[in-house]
Amino acid sequence: MTRDSTKIYSMAKKHNFGAGPCILPQEVFQQAAKAVLDFNGLSILEVSHRDKDFMAVMEEARMLVKKVLNVPDDYTVLYLQGGASLGFLIAAMNMCGKNRKAAYVETGVWAKKAAKEAKLAGLTVDTIANSADKNYSYIPKGFKIGADYDYVHYTSNNTIYGTQFREFPKSNIPLVCDMSSDIFSKKINVADYHIIYAGAQKNLGPAGATLFIVKNSVLGNSTYANIPSYLDLKNHAENESMYNTPPCFSVYVSMLNLRHLIANGGLEAMEKKNEKKAALLYAEIDSNPLFKGTVEKEDRSNMNVCFVCKDESLTEQFQLMCKEAGLIGLKGHRSVGGFRASLYNACEISDVEVLVNTMKSFAKKNVAVNS
Amino acid sequence: MTRDSTKIYSMAKKHNFGAGPCILPQEVFQQAAKAVLDFNGLSILEVSHRDKDFMAVMEEARMLVKKVLNVPDDYTVLYLQGGASLGFLIAAMNMCGKNRKAAYVETGVWAKKAAKEAKLAGLTVDTIANSADKNYSYIPKGFKIGADYDYVHYTSNNTIYGTQFREFPKSNIPLVCDMSSDIFSKKINVADYHIIYAGAQKNLGPAGATLFIVKNSVLGNSTYANIPSYLDLKNHAENESMYNTPPCFSVYVSMLNLRHLIANGGLEAMEKKNEKKAALLYAEIDSNPLFKGTVEKEDRSNMNVCFVCKDESLTEQFQLMCKEAGLIGLKGHRSVGGFRASLYNACEISDVEVLVNTMKSFAKKNVAVNS
Repeated sequence: MTRDSTKIYSMAKKHNFGAGPCILPQEVFQQAAKAVLDFNGLSILEVSHRDKDFMAVMEEARMLVKKVLNVPDDYTVLYLQGGASLGFLIAAMNMCGKNRKAAYVETGVWAKKAAKEAKLAGLTVDTIANSADKNYSYIPKGFKIGADYDYVHYTSNNTIYGTQFREFPKSNIPLVCDMSSDIFSKKINVADYHIIYAGAQKNLGPAGATLFIVKNSVLGNSTYANIPSYLDLKNHAENESMYNTPPCFSVYVSMLNLRHLIANGGLEAMEKKNEKKAALLYAEIDSNPLFKGTVEKEDRSNMNVCFVCKDESLTEQFQLMCKEAGLIGLKGHRSVGGFRASLYNACEISDVEVLVNTMKSFAKKNVAVNS
Repeated sequence: MTRDSTKIYSMAKKHNFGAGPCILPQEVFQQAAKAVLDFNGLSILEVSHRDKDFMAVMEEARMLVKKVLNVPDDYTVLYLQGGASLGFLIAAMNMCGKNRKAAYVETGVWAKKAAKEAKLAGLTVDTIANSADKNYSYIPKGFKIGADYDYVHYTSNNTIYGTQFREFPKSNIPLVCDMSSDIFSKKINVADYHIIYAGAQKNLGPAGATLFIVKNSVLGNSTYANIPSYLDLKNHAENESMYNTPPCFSVYVSMLNLRHLIANGGLEAMEKKNEKKAALLYAEIDSNPLFKGTVEKEDRSNMNVCFVCKDESLTEQFQLMCKEAGLIGLKGHRSVGGFRASLYNACEISDVEVLVNTMKSFAKKNVAVNS
């Protein structure tokens, strides 16, 4: 079936800036819908995970992660469940070492929750850096990482607050990172990490899968007594990510999306596109008389762009204008307020242009009214 | 859009007897495919779980479980992740009481794994009944449940071995049941249980969601110290099954499937249909000279029908004949061998008739050859 023949539904053009679950390429939606109706003569939803056709899907979905991120050979890629919220616990239990002690960098709600789960798992947790003092509007820098930690954990991009790490201090302590909201948006050096994990529902696929990329030396080497089976990455690795029934459809769509990413230039092209989109929007925020960004400029995220109306009373009016322009998912998180434009991979430059033009029109209208 | 207009793909008729993920109604596949392309103007895969349209989906998906199973008011319905394999752990941690001691009935691999996770969680576990002595080919009966257990756990239907509980001994001990492979196949009395849990991927929806039905008195009353947040049912209940991003698409399709179930007569009609299918197939197994069942007759499952060729050398030949007839997913689990026909809700009587007729033809052919 060709791509065009699947386009049986016409949709009014919407520009989805939602923070996640979020936009994926339209072509991926088309292919996913087709597979729900016909995947080798069955629905993808009724295929056994032990069927050779699905096993090939899982294998490709894992392999494509390795290919796209240039993952070294001594790492294992897994698709689990439970989101980053369960990932917090899995990371702590599997990284628990002889000191049973971990360092966490608190750059937002999710980073704080990650530390909480490590504590619940019984580890001693030190928050070695924290930007809570300014509502997480910046990335802490210049902090030192002591020598007695089993691992250090950080959140590469803070979806709610719109901050993103440009680099993380070098140390000899194994690094664990929750990359839920910026993985696959730019090149990374996987060899820097012992565990990378990420909820699928930003740049990878639909909600319901959680990606783990784990250094093989981590597997089976935790000092944590009696890790429950589902939480032990070794079990998942030994069973090639099929320890139990995986979230089959989410894995399938992730595979489609990774294929699409490669066909469209891979991470190099994606990183450029993402930088261009973010630059376009931040330039408008900085030059438009009605708006301002909420984050220190050097720490601004390329994925989640947070901004507010300088005059708060205009907020509702701009929300309405966005709605009329088909711009959706722009409401800021309640802890920041204002607006948040999430510029994930499938968001196009043309989508950002519509937003920027709407901001320009809004300024023109309001400056005219007020002058 | 009418049902017919979505039927743009023609498929050769296959009869899917797979053990799970497994067949769902064709109408549900059609509706699910449509939503991947257009759910209120977006793909269901890109809709935020905090969007009011998705929140309505979650609410309906939870409400329909209550409606279909006639769930009492003092129970909460949740859609989690991780499958029954994580459910084993969640059940143990949340049911842990003053004795930190639980009774398990071992009727198969999954029942045994459930007990293992309770042990890993630190509980004292007694296996109070066990059918391992005869390769789990029967359901233990007449066992007593001591007074000092926090709960007793059993597996209502054993997917691998094809046995099913008709009833469970009454006691004062809170009852916990893994109903993964027979929930929604027949009426149950939810009030008998403190926790019911089930992987979605049999009679509820696609893989990736795990249903919990929990008595409210369980929530927050565990003696387990420091339950990790994702594993604490109280957190999920307080957040109306949105503690973190849920497996949105699996929940959506489960909602569609529950609507379909209600529209087709609910559990009463389904139970009759399932009994009829099983009776048809077991009658053929018992009367056909070439086959025999593997399970004690009184403990036979209506969901998973296990049988073998009396002459093992005929197995491959019958496999081939099934393949030619479009009968798929019939290979028995390696621990039982032979064949397993899973007769989940969406399997039609006509599908079973094709299987039965194939068995008859096979007998005719082979008896003719051998006489």
